[in-house]
Amino acid sequence: MIRVAIYGYGNLGKGIECAVNYADDMTLVGVFTRRDPSTLTTLTGAPVYSSDDILLYRDDIDVLVLCGGSATDLPTTTPELAKHFNVIDSFDTHANIPTHLANVDATARESRHLALISAGWDPGMFSLARLYGSAILPNGRDYTFWGKGVSQGHSDAIRRIEGVLDARQYTIPVDSALDKVRSGVCPDLTTRDKHIRECYVVVADGVDKARVEREIVTMPNYFADYDTMVHFVSQEVLDRDHKGIPHGGFVIRTGSTGLDKANNHVVEYSLKLDSNPEFTASVITAFCRAVYNMHMRGEVGAVTVFDVRPVDLSPLSREQIIASML
Amino acid sequence: MIRVAIYGYGNLGKGIECAVNYADDMTLVGVFTRRDPSTLTTLTGAPVYSSDDILLYRDDIDVLVLCGGSATDLPTTTPELAKHFNVIDSFDTHANIPTHLANVDATARESRHLALISAGWDPGMFSLARLYGSAILPNGRDYTFWGKGVSQGHSDAIRRIEGVLDARQYTIPVDSALDKVRSGVCPDLTTRDKHIRECYVVVADGVDKARVEREIVTMPNYFADYDTMVHFVSQEVLDRDHKGIPHGGFVIRTGSTGLDKANNHVVEYSLKLDSNPEFTASVITAFCRAVYNMHMRGEVGAVTVFDVRPVDLSPLSREQIIASML
Repeated sequence: MIRVAIYGYGNLGKGIECAVNYADDMTLVGVFTRRDPSTLTTLTGAPVYSSDDILLYRDDIDVLVLCGGSATDLPTTTPELAKHFNVIDSFDTHANIPTHLANVDATARESRHLALISAGWDPGMFSLARLYGSAILPNGRDYTFWGKGVSQGHSDAIRRIEGVLDARQYTIPVDSALDKVRSGVCPDLTTRDKHIRECYVVVADGVDKARVEREIVTMPNYFADYDTMVHFVSQEVLDRDHKGIPHGGFVIRTGSTGLDKANNHVVEYSLKLDSNPEFTASVITAFCRAVYNMHMRGEVGAVTVFDVRPVDLSPLSREQIIASML
Repeated sequence: MIRVAIYGYGNLGKGIECAVNYADDMTLVGVFTRRDPSTLTTLTGAPVYSSDDILLYRDDIDVLVLCGGSATDLPTTTPELAKHFNVIDSFDTHANIPTHLANVDATARESRHLALISAGWDPGMFSLARLYGSAILPNGRDYTFWGKGVSQGHSDAIRRIEGVLDARQYTIPVDSALDKVRSGVCPDLTTRDKHIRECYVVVADGVDKARVEREIVTMPNYFADYDTMVHFVSQEVLDRDHKGIPHGGFVIRTGSTGLDKANNHVVEYSLKLDSNPEFTASVITAFCRAVYNMHMRGEVGAVTVFDVRPVDLSPLSREQIIASML
């Protein structure tokens, strides 16, 4: 049994708890939190401990799953805890990944632990789709589309506008752009060409909706570069129809082969997810298994999804995998 | 530079020749054939040698790509040549893969070479999609659909019917079955539910078309279990409209997450290929690079696509891959 522990108990931590609960080869040691443990009740009844006490559990945990945020938590938590545990995180600030990897590698290598960073679906499964696609079709190009899905950051940005009570923002890929990419013509697509943004907004009584809509669609970085649709709805409708946190997207690689490059090919990897955090947690849980297997073979340092043999992700034996899936 | 050689020069061998030609980190040593080398002209002008002389080139080849057939060639060729070379093949008789793997492993391990078997898209990329999908969504099920594409075996079967001059058979996935799978209901689907077969047939003058059609649609193993459409066309139309060898397909994994399994997810990997052999060759060429990298690190024996770290497939450095694709 692989002994897994969770560090941080938000939506992602809860998703890990559920995924580990259904993994026959894993057991959940517990949840570590910076809050008062007595205030937390876990979904499965897993024990809750204070994060202050985590070093007491050094010998009880095979893989520690770090469920903090990429902005402020993981840049310090991951390298620090890699001094004492095999760890895995979902660090997703793409531009800072090389620095994060180097920081984590230094402490993990020193302590002879294995740390896997940036697991999830993007970065994660979409990264793998980009790598496999580019290796197989070097004469080509890849495109990533996100959605339809909820963007938490964009929803928060709308909520900061004066008079807005609540909001939910969906990122939606543009069908005609997807079709153009699939046709193999390798188009140049701007930000506006690829995605539209749809907003469901609740405002207080008497608020000027035209002003709110104008502030949304012209907001720099968030909306100004996109075609944005704004719908004003009641809090009841928002709560009833827009409670979920779906997401998904597409990685499409097109490329040509043959001496005169006459033959075209389309490789497409897509996700359609009811729950973004639960799916992310499912990916991380599979990679927990790989961290365990790799560390058992003596591998140390910081690695990514690119460094993991697919065979290490499955609870089945190599023989079973080859017989049933190859 | 990775020195690659090709053993067998049919459609697959030609595809390897083109793919290696466009790989900046590879050079093609030559093509080995059982035919008289003087009768062969290669697409790129690569030298042609007799397969009888291959052992003379032991020190000149890093990876030898075996382009024979799975029925009679590869079961003997791969284990035999793994005594002298790092090899890669596209052995695709699914049921016999474990035996083939064991045979190749024995000779490759003895001679300290690395052999990768069953590279291509199915087995190959589709196998990887099945493994990743099952590891990530254990509470789920996967489905593989093939097509639209040409089945050489079924085309040949039609040509053996009396009075048939030529034929081309397409395997086509049933859209409604694809949609049902994507809906996440995990349907039980029979062979007939998943694919239809469409046949373009040229018959000699005066042949009874009704009899030919009846013989096709009732043919055991090949057509009897499917809904089959038969179109009689002229040789001119067949040559004009059905010369290509397209193929493709879908691997769809659906599964649920959460404590009460309330959230559903769909992971879909699909291929749309103008040329089946050229795409297969492109996959094999990427895995050639992995065979080389793994053998340079001292790995020996027989492996599959499941044993390959994705990072080993790319000509880019690990740092470049992480910075540009993670």
